[in-house]
Amino acid sequence: MNAHDASDRPLRIVVIGGVAGGASAAARARRTNANAEITVLEKGPYVSFANCGIPYHLGGEIAQRSKLLVTTAELFWNRFRIAVKTGFEATRIDRPARVVEGIDHATGEPFAIPYDRLILSTGSEPISPAFMQPPCDNVRHLWTLPDMDAVLNQIQAANVSDAVVVGAGFVGLEVVEQLVRIGIRVTLIERLDQVLKPLDRHLARGVERELRSHGVTLHLASEIAGLRRADGRATTVELSDGTVIPTDLIVIGAGVRPRVGLAVEAGLSIGKAGGLVVDEFMRTADPNIYAVGDMVEYLHGVLDSRMRIPLAGPANRSGRIAGAHAACGSAQPMGSVLGTSIVRVFGLTAACTGLSEAALDGYGIDHRAVIIQATHHSGYFPGAESMFLKLVYAPADGRILGAQGVGGLGVDKRIDVIATAMHFGGTVYHLGQLDLAYAPPFGSAKDPVHMAAFAAINDLEGQPSVVPPGADLSGHQVLDVRSKRERDELPLEGAIGIPVDELADRWGELDPDLPTITVCHSGKRAHVAACWLRGKGWENVRNLTGGMAIRSIEDP
Amino acid sequence: MNAHDASDRPLRIVVIGGVAGGASAAARARRTNANAEITVLEKGPYVSFANCGIPYHLGGEIAQRSKLLVTTAELFWNRFRIAVKTGFEATRIDRPARVVEGIDHATGEPFAIPYDRLILSTGSEPISPAFMQPPCDNVRHLWTLPDMDAVLNQIQAANVSDAVVVGAGFVGLEVVEQLVRIGIRVTLIERLDQVLKPLDRHLARGVERELRSHGVTLHLASEIAGLRRADGRATTVELSDGTVIPTDLIVIGAGVRPRVGLAVEAGLSIGKAGGLVVDEFMRTADPNIYAVGDMVEYLHGVLDSRMRIPLAGPANRSGRIAGAHAACGSAQPMGSVLGTSIVRVFGLTAACTGLSEAALDGYGIDHRAVIIQATHHSGYFPGAESMFLKLVYAPADGRILGAQGVGGLGVDKRIDVIATAMHFGGTVYHLGQLDLAYAPPFGSAKDPVHMAAFAAINDLEGQPSVVPPGADLSGHQVLDVRSKRERDELPLEGAIGIPVDELADRWGELDPDLPTITVCHSGKRAHVAACWLRGKGWENVRNLTGGMAIRSIEDP
Repeated sequence: MNAHDASDRPLRIVVIGGVAGGASAAARARRTNANAEITVLEKGPYVSFANCGIPYHLGGEIAQRSKLLVTTAELFWNRFRIAVKTGFEATRIDRPARVVEGIDHATGEPFAIPYDRLILSTGSEPISPAFMQPPCDNVRHLWTLPDMDAVLNQIQAANVSDAVVVGAGFVGLEVVEQLVRIGIRVTLIERLDQVLKPLDRHLARGVERELRSHGVTLHLASEIAGLRRADGRATTVELSDGTVIPTDLIVIGAGVRPRVGLAVEAGLSIGKAGGLVVDEFMRTADPNIYAVGDMVEYLHGVLDSRMRIPLAGPANRSGRIAGAHAACGSAQPMGSVLGTSIVRVFGLTAACTGLSEAALDGYGIDHRAVIIQATHHSGYFPGAESMFLKLVYAPADGRILGAQGVGGLGVDKRIDVIATAMHFGGTVYHLGQLDLAYAPPFGSAKDPVHMAAFAAINDLEGQPSVVPPGADLSGHQVLDVRSKRERDELPLEGAIGIPVDELADRWGELDPDLPTITVCHSGKRAHVAACWLRGKGWENVRNLTGGMAIRSIEDP
Repeated sequence: MNAHDASDRPLRIVVIGGVAGGASAAARARRTNANAEITVLEKGPYVSFANCGIPYHLGGEIAQRSKLLVTTAELFWNRFRIAVKTGFEATRIDRPARVVEGIDHATGEPFAIPYDRLILSTGSEPISPAFMQPPCDNVRHLWTLPDMDAVLNQIQAANVSDAVVVGAGFVGLEVVEQLVRIGIRVTLIERLDQVLKPLDRHLARGVERELRSHGVTLHLASEIAGLRRADGRATTVELSDGTVIPTDLIVIGAGVRPRVGLAVEAGLSIGKAGGLVVDEFMRTADPNIYAVGDMVEYLHGVLDSRMRIPLAGPANRSGRIAGAHAACGSAQPMGSVLGTSIVRVFGLTAACTGLSEAALDGYGIDHRAVIIQATHHSGYFPGAESMFLKLVYAPADGRILGAQGVGGLGVDKRIDVIATAMHFGGTVYHLGQLDLAYAPPFGSAKDPVHMAAFAAINDLEGQPSVVPPGADLSGHQVLDVRSKRERDELPLEGAIGIPVDELADRWGELDPDLPTITVCHSGKRAHVAACWLRGKGWENVRNLTGGMAIRSIEDP
């Protein structure tokens, strides 16, 4: 089974890096090979920890620090006979000799450990903007348990009342939420002109509104020019536009880059996306060396090319695959990855899978999109929460390219369902046919996924087509079919107001020769209205996808 | 576009039956054809109502009755120019003349309405057991709004303290829950030896435990021999075994049968499953007549044959398809249906898709299954709720045949994800590759869906295989790898107790020549233990799927 050499000596598997993929790989290696010698080298103090939980301990939502220590070296030895060597930093891979060299930080002594199969799980490391030099106690990443301890120490010792979070990605927003939770005033600074880059701007605007409504100050499209320091601490953030923000604490979440130095020095190949090149079994070009997690490139399910996707789910799955393949020579293949992501931001959930319209523009891939507003379960059942669901698809064949959801309960379910359909190369036509679980506490007979699919199919078939939420309505006859009360509350300038339920009598008031766009609150009545006019033979009628509900949360 | 005849007369579309599919069909017909004359004939008083919400008004969870009236004849006219004729009961279809005949119950006058396209949506009707004759005010179905009003009237007027619910299907359990909610003592009587037939027995047992813990008395495998009556009211239920149950109210949920009389008399074909035969566009053998909803047979996604599946989701989707096709001659096809269903039972959710092992046995289809126990989000994040997830699959190729979930939050999401994979003919290998949304409040890096898939793949590959929860363990060496405390609390007789973390030292205490089954609480440690022994060269080692957590809720 283990054709590493002719001897009866057990297969020697060495894993470099325990967090996420590494520990997973080691445990799986043991389960598929009871006789291998398995060693995990981890330069930090813990074999593995729940890095995704770190922000939540900051705000006390995960009250006990020990909850984050999901496993221990002792358990790994007792249960799996896996030797975990913490404080062991690998510094060189001698591929011809099949030896990992490095330093044991506990003793300061060098080590050299032979392997038959090596699994690299060195992960990624947070990017450090220039202003982090020289270091200050109150300017911190939040990446490891020691980082977390340092930030918590600041909060407890330094009487923090104001904090700046740099970077409005998924982790950045988790940190913002948790700092607000413990009563800290938070300013969020983001280089881009929106939060959560994987979302298209209109959906991101909904998240920004939620942040502001919880007292968070946002500086979008803002660069940090520098920090002012006193007594070795940062006291003030200066933005490029001259804005000055006094602060007690700065937490940096400005993205990560793969830790590939060790692999590069060993001559292993780096791909176009900057990660290690691996095959479907996580093997590098060296058949005895595997790599997993944040440091590698995965096959992207939409692009059909290799991408870095530094997320815990793929890291765990890739670890499992590498562990099995290294230990017994076979495994299920990795499959493609869609970058499916999710974050809770106070009362909202924001989630996405596949690619946004903005990303597709960047790749030059043709796309269309609809946005619907729906409730997470039957509207007549108490407690229904609203969500926006955006579906992005190929105009040629309706293939799903991405989805984004922002709202209350149930966003996670819809994004997972769509991600599942995308795994199979599904189209919006498939989504419309799905047989999903329905009872009033859980969904609707027409689920939000169906509603989005139906809207997309109508768009593709021109029954009628949609215009995007930011569309320039000038030069069009705009028909607003909301009620008078709705129009008074949130006017749409230049629109002709005819409530949808009067349109059958009053459509003669409109000019059939003008290109027409219909508008309502969510897009549903506007679709009905557009159908009426199309059915009367009007050629150029479209409806505003997502309605005023989305359009009205345009740029603040 | 509408080649109904050579004239310029608008297409006449008549829909028989408004509830669920019918109203959906009519509205969709309008959206695809602005000029058709559309008429809905509904024998009841409402064009449509939220029949799935009826149980929840009984217990006051949906407080306002008006919430159930999801649409009105007035809205249908104003918005869609659809004429709704309530109280119009169709009694005959004259296919050669293309005329629907019937009676207007408001006037007692007959009517005859011509059609070019006819859409049948006569739904299903509740089965009435023999003991319902002669009728009593306090022995009721709960199928329509008038049924609901009558039951509510009983509860309010007759001082109901004890009720009997007959039938432990999805609706029956909703009724039980709502009656308990308003302080009524409930006895549930079910002909089968378990609740919720679509679930396999072990998962149903968990639901039964939840019912009992809320004070519900269960009589399973019980037939009602008859009722005792006094003053025109039922006072007592007598079971075949002689049990006597005094009661103030009896609600019947003993299943439904399709209402196909009108269609049969018109010479349309009934299929093997007892529903109307339709094609993928919901057309009957008569190209001018469509049928939708509970009365038809759908293509079943697992069986690849036509089945009746009386659920709101397929009814709505089929209505939409028939409406479009009748109105404009084209539509997206219906696709297959999996019978995906869900019910809340107090603090539990029970859901399923595809077929159970029991159902597959009935069809003679080969299958295997695993059961896992997992939390709905990261265990280290507060509020994690536990679920059992069962995955049923084909031994030959791992194709998913069904799934069942019973637990707290998040059961709906996992069943929907698996139903989506099944729509594409997915396998357990596909499930293991899915890229699902993960952050600690929403899931785990290894989602319960992944965990179930991994368990199934291990089973299929013999790494190692599983035995079902009810397996006869006698004749096996049974290794219980739970802690001493766990074993003391819930002993497993005849088992050898070695905690999993001592097994690497102590496996020599076992007899390698005996067929061995490993057991723990949920099946996870038992899998690790079985892997150890397999890896040591033991041929015949399997683990108990679902562990003691499932096995211990065996027959009470």
